[in-house]
Amino acid sequence: MAGQALVGIVMGSDSDWPVMQAAAQALAEFDVPIEVDVVSAHRQPDKMVEYGRTAADRGLRVVVAGAGGAAHLPGMLASVTTLPVVGVPVPLAYLDGMDSLLSIVQMPAGVPVATVSVGGARNAGLLAVRILAAGTDPLAARLRVAMGEFQEGLRVQADAKGERLRALAGGGRATTGFTARA
Amino acid sequence: MAGQALVGIVMGSDSDWPVMQAAAQALAEFDVPIEVDVVSAHRQPDKMVEYGRTAADRGLRVVVAGAGGAAHLPGMLASVTTLPVVGVPVPLAYLDGMDSLLSIVQMPAGVPVATVSVGGARNAGLLAVRILAAGTDPLAARLRVAMGEFQEGLRVQADAKGERLRALAGGGRATTGFTARA
Amino acid sequence: MAGQALVGIVMGSDSDWPVMQAAAQALAEFDVPIEVDVVSAHRQPDKMVEYGRTAADRGLRVVVAGAGGAAHLPGMLASVTTLPVVGVPVPLAYLDGMDSLLSIVQMPAGVPVATVSVGGARNAGLLAVRILAAGTDPLAARLRVAMGEFQEGLRVQADAKGERLRALAGGGRATTGFTARA
Amino acid sequence: MAGQALVGIVMGSDSDWPVMQAAAQALAEFDVPIEVDVVSAHRQPDKMVEYGRTAADRGLRVVVAGAGGAAHLPGMLASVTTLPVVGVPVPLAYLDGMDSLLSIVQMPAGVPVATVSVGGARNAGLLAVRILAAGTDPLAARLRVAMGEFQEGLRVQADAKGERLRALAGGGRATTGFTARA
Amino acid sequence: MAGQALVGIVMGSDSDWPVMQAAAQALAEFDVPIEVDVVSAHRQPDKMVEYGRTAADRGLRVVVAGAGGAAHLPGMLASVTTLPVVGVPVPLAYLDGMDSLLSIVQMPAGVPVATVSVGGARNAGLLAVRILAAGTDPLAARLRVAMGEFQEGLRVQADAKGERLRALAGGGRATTGFTARA
Amino acid sequence: MAGQALVGIVMGSDSDWPVMQAAAQALAEFDVPIEVDVVSAHRQPDKMVEYGRTAADRGLRVVVAGAGGAAHLPGMLASVTTLPVVGVPVPLAYLDGMDSLLSIVQMPAGVPVATVSVGGARNAGLLAVRILAAGTDPLAARLRVAMGEFQEGLRVQADAKGERLRALAGGGRATTGFTARA
Amino acid sequence: MAGQALVGIVMGSDSDWPVMQAAAQALAEFDVPIEVDVVSAHRQPDKMVEYGRTAADRGLRVVVAGAGGAAHLPGMLASVTTLPVVGVPVPLAYLDGMDSLLSIVQMPAGVPVATVSVGGARNAGLLAVRILAAGTDPLAARLRVAMGEFQEGLRVQADAKGERLRALAGGGRATTGFTARA
Amino acid sequence: MAGQALVGIVMGSDSDWPVMQAAAQALAEFDVPIEVDVVSAHRQPDKMVEYGRTAADRGLRVVVAGAGGAAHLPGMLASVTTLPVVGVPVPLAYLDGMDSLLSIVQMPAGVPVATVSVGGARNAGLLAVRILAAGTDPLAARLRVAMGEFQEGLRVQADAKGERLRALAGGGRATTGFTARA
Repeated sequence: MAGQALVGIVMGSDSDWPVMQAAAQALAEFDVPIEVDVVSAHRQPDKMVEYGRTAADRGLRVVVAGAGGAAHLPGMLASVTTLPVVGVPVPLAYLDGMDSLLSIVQMPAGVPVATVSVGGARNAGLLAVRILAAGTDPLAARLRVAMGEFQEGLRVQADAKGERLRALAGGGRATTGFTARA
Repeated sequence: MAGQALVGIVMGSDSDWPVMQAAAQALAEFDVPIEVDVVSAHRQPDKMVEYGRTAADRGLRVVVAGAGGAAHLPGMLASVTTLPVVGVPVPLAYLDGMDSLLSIVQMPAGVPVATVSVGGARNAGLLAVRILAAGTDPLAARLRVAMGEFQEGLRVQADAKGERLRALAGGGRATTGFTARA
Repeated sequence: MAGQALVGIVMGSDSDWPVMQAAAQALAEFDVPIEVDVVSAHRQPDKMVEYGRTAADRGLRVVVAGAGGAAHLPGMLASVTTLPVVGVPVPLAYLDGMDSLLSIVQMPAGVPVATVSVGGARNAGLLAVRILAAGTDPLAARLRVAMGEFQEGLRVQADAKGERLRALAGGGRATTGFTARA
Repeated sequence: MAGQALVGIVMGSDSDWPVMQAAAQALAEFDVPIEVDVVSAHRQPDKMVEYGRTAADRGLRVVVAGAGGAAHLPGMLASVTTLPVVGVPVPLAYLDGMDSLLSIVQMPAGVPVATVSVGGARNAGLLAVRILAAGTDPLAARLRVAMGEFQEGLRVQADAKGERLRALAGGGRATTGFTARA
Repeated sequence: MAGQALVGIVMGSDSDWPVMQAAAQALAEFDVPIEVDVVSAHRQPDKMVEYGRTAADRGLRVVVAGAGGAAHLPGMLASVTTLPVVGVPVPLAYLDGMDSLLSIVQMPAGVPVATVSVGGARNAGLLAVRILAAGTDPLAARLRVAMGEFQEGLRVQADAKGERLRALAGGGRATTGFTARA
Repeated sequence: MAGQALVGIVMGSDSDWPVMQAAAQALAEFDVPIEVDVVSAHRQPDKMVEYGRTAADRGLRVVVAGAGGAAHLPGMLASVTTLPVVGVPVPLAYLDGMDSLLSIVQMPAGVPVATVSVGGARNAGLLAVRILAAGTDPLAARLRVAMGEFQEGLRVQADAKGERLRALAGGGRATTGFTARA
Repeated sequence: MAGQALVGIVMGSDSDWPVMQAAAQALAEFDVPIEVDVVSAHRQPDKMVEYGRTAADRGLRVVVAGAGGAAHLPGMLASVTTLPVVGVPVPLAYLDGMDSLLSIVQMPAGVPVATVSVGGARNAGLLAVRILAAGTDPLAARLRVAMGEFQEGLRVQADAKGERLRALAGGGRATTGFTARA
Repeated sequence: MAGQALVGIVMGSDSDWPVMQAAAQALAEFDVPIEVDVVSAHRQPDKMVEYGRTAADRGLRVVVAGAGGAAHLPGMLASVTTLPVVGVPVPLAYLDGMDSLLSIVQMPAGVPVATVSVGGARNAGLLAVRILAAGTDPLAARLRVAMGEFQEGLRVQADAKGERLRALAGGGRATTGFTARA
């Protein structure tokens, strides 16, 4: 793992990567150095404990953990680190991620996990950016500006979508043959 | 937006349009002028507030709003307008729209949203027609008549379906090889 | 029933009245004349059909219907009237009103019910006010103004609550012995 | 409709037929004469009331009703007939039939619906057979015998499946390459 | 057990009796002779099998079975008798009877259980009456008349409730101090 | 901890004891020596790992673990021991134990937890007895006999309950004034 | 069935075999002799009772039972044997196995079922191995060692997955074109 | 509001204070200066927007927001600030907070909310501490140490609970009369 990584993205299995890579992508957009690894609470309990215990000393400032089903990784990591842990409920074949969500979000008093939506790895990355941006150092200042621009970008994209939709719905025949009278 | 639009149909993203266009279609069938736009509570909060604040003055009499997941658009619009707001829970990839439904329907006392079924954009449009038809003006009178004819049409269609089904089930071999003895 | 009633509030049983009277209360605050009755879809199907069929001619402009469990009243009324029907899911002893909610909100295309929250009778009354206020007659104009004042009142009350909370939390010892350092 | 039909199978729309025909099939296997029709509580309320009111006089002894979403047909029919009504929750695109199930099964005291599983139309037909077989007439006697043979047939089929499975699992390589050591 | 009993009411434990006695009460109102017993699928599997196997020969024509949690009694009885079995989901301390409901209603094809609402023992009794009334014997004829009167009685009671509610809501001050203007 | 303990009963907090002591009680009835402790996955991760790692060597043959909410204890213990782990979902103030159940039962392939019902600590103890009774040693032989007697005792108790219920329901006036005609 | 089989794997229908064979596979990996059969609680109640009653005498030490929907097989088997019964909730077309799970796990006090995850047949097999390994005989000793190696293997596999993921995420372009800066 | 406050705790109504004060209490234990206020998304939309817009400039570094039902406050605040927003699902009278949880956690991509458990205000406060402790300033250094001591304190308390439980369960008669044989 690179020493300079600020955010560690871990998951219970590499089968979670198609979901979790959106977290890496989001952090890449903000130029935040990351590390990525498989850390399974149930298959690598020792690695899991060590990962959490050494995370802060290795320079990590946020941990993003994804898991599915009886998803214990985010909560267990939170119990062995003082860093903020962001949990991503990964949906499995059944139950639409409701088991993953409840297993992550319903942590007992004392050990919080910052939970995002089912499959919401992109938001997990963005939440990590917000946490880093809440600091007082130059990185935080840079990220605050970047996050402001990001939010502005969301607005601009939505504006453009609105323009296209108004044209689509108002200027001709929609796919169902509808002509709007806007 | 056209000044004469009576119903505004808005959604959090243009990805909601495949669901939401059924609302436009329904209003088109009743010749109710509409406007359509992307208004995202989370990406365009200022536009959202302004949209709701100016809706009545721009001549709108009903707002139809669709959103998915943590679906805040209908409720937030209802908080910045006095118009009736019809909410459409748009289903996302997981949870079958239950999150969208609860996020829209469970509004606190003081700020109601008229919620329809998961994905029920057509009914949202028809509900807007009923609301307009509840007035005392000539448009309302016309819409009441049209809605009565529409309901009669539903009956006629169902009658025809029944006739076909009776023929299918009673007059020969059904697809599973069943011969009904009606 | 009085001829001038504009909103009919009906429920499947008088046991629903403790929940449903909040709808009557809300309409009373806006001086909207109402009528109140028991109309059970399952125990009085003929009355239910007649109630819906004659509602518009008797001068009603909105129907508010509450029911619990397999809650069929709102949807069935909507099938026999062209008026907008507002449905209130009344919670029963089990299932927390989820059965009532789904039975009311999940109406098939063609027959919408404007559903509010579980137990949300007050919002049902306020939604009826918004629907009446969406018209073009003097009553609508009056109600639009009143609804605007109502919303302003919500804001004022919330401001006052905030003031009290800031004093409570910031100026002394809270009930758990907490002293905030705001 | 044929006068001799003993069981009426009705559904809210012909789109329910792919699910509901399994009820017809089951009754056909027992040579029970049936009638099949579209009866929509929301689109044909008058037909629905008349269907239920005349069902017993037309010779029906059981009604099987299927519906989806806010599924009011079984319960409404039960309110206008004294016949036993069997309800089939038809699953829609979302919510896996949970809305249909609760809308049918959670009937208020006084008006029962005999509910079967989500999509369980075959069992609805078999339940109708059991109800007819509970009588004291020659048909009932014949159906009791036939139902006994049917249950015996279920056992025989299951025995055969067990034999095949034991051969498959114990006598060679299963589809995953597994060789059982039974 | 008395030979003349036509309906057997059984439950997994006498702790279900406070819920299940409403079934006995309903049948008593229709003068249908019953028998009542504890038959536990899990604690008395032999008695359960024998109860179901001998039920028809002992003269029973319907079995009403209540159980909670992993509620196997109704379905297991249905597998060892050809009589119609009515299942009552008894709610336990947690999960609001949802486990009981699904364990009873979701029977596999071939073995139906006529399921009523969570805690709906009264409706189970009434459904048994409807099943008996679907026959062709003098008892059935008497029960059809009685069930018709019962339904009429439901209407009369609801009418009376409506009258009282109209008086309460319209003629004076309701419990929240509301004066309706009906 | 006593060296001879065969079953370890652990829980995340002593607030789980009112639920979990039923497991101890069940094992006491079978004279199985136990040990009881608080082992919190989130507050004592090191103790948890050590507890699981040393369990077999200390002579334990089954671990019973109860936890609520994001209930990670049973699954984490299963990952650090080869012993069978029985998980008890302890219900919290909200969600009726559904979060606890899913967090325990939905373990990933490779690390099973033997899950019992919400709050089902007594069954957890009985399951531990069954597991010990599945062995080939004299203890197992004794427990098999005892478990057979236990099951027989369940039957006898249920028989007695049935006798009392038949007397109550059939021999006089029930608590609702019902007289059964069995 | 072979006399030496130690674990019986049964299911309600051979259609459950695609799910259940993972249990057989897991036991095969540990060289535990098994038997496999169809035992339907609802279609073969006599076989089911006999299977359970004779299981211990035939040499079985654990029963693994899979069933879907109103899944009564595991619980009913547990009521007629003293062996530990492992239940596998098999998901059906609707409800994602939630009905299967609750029907299996929510057993009443006295008759436990060791429930695994929805579709978790592999874990059912592994749980059976752990139960056998909890004994005091040479087989148990062998299985304890093998289970320890199995857990070690899980760790090794996860380590390898982590290595590959670190290479994938850190050393080049991921499938979405992302380049991590670890 | 005091300029030095680092965490803002806001809620939709002062009726949420009994739940939310646990967040204030947690932050007080870490000597983190806070501000507390009522900010209702639906009743004070302008104040809500302004609160979020000015939060960072006023010196806040984390916002903790609690709301119930259709809980829009946390997500709406996240849309108008770049600060990390921690959301607390406040349970209402029905649905056990499931509506609140889904309304908060299921945010669309782009606008994350760090969600904690239903009613988990204490963990929201602790998560805010962890976020502040993730910085590089002296406060962060102090909080990291304090959070480490806090986690150690959790362990010590759990150890003490274990000691008491071992004494209670092993040294005498438990409250149900149980004597453990540890």
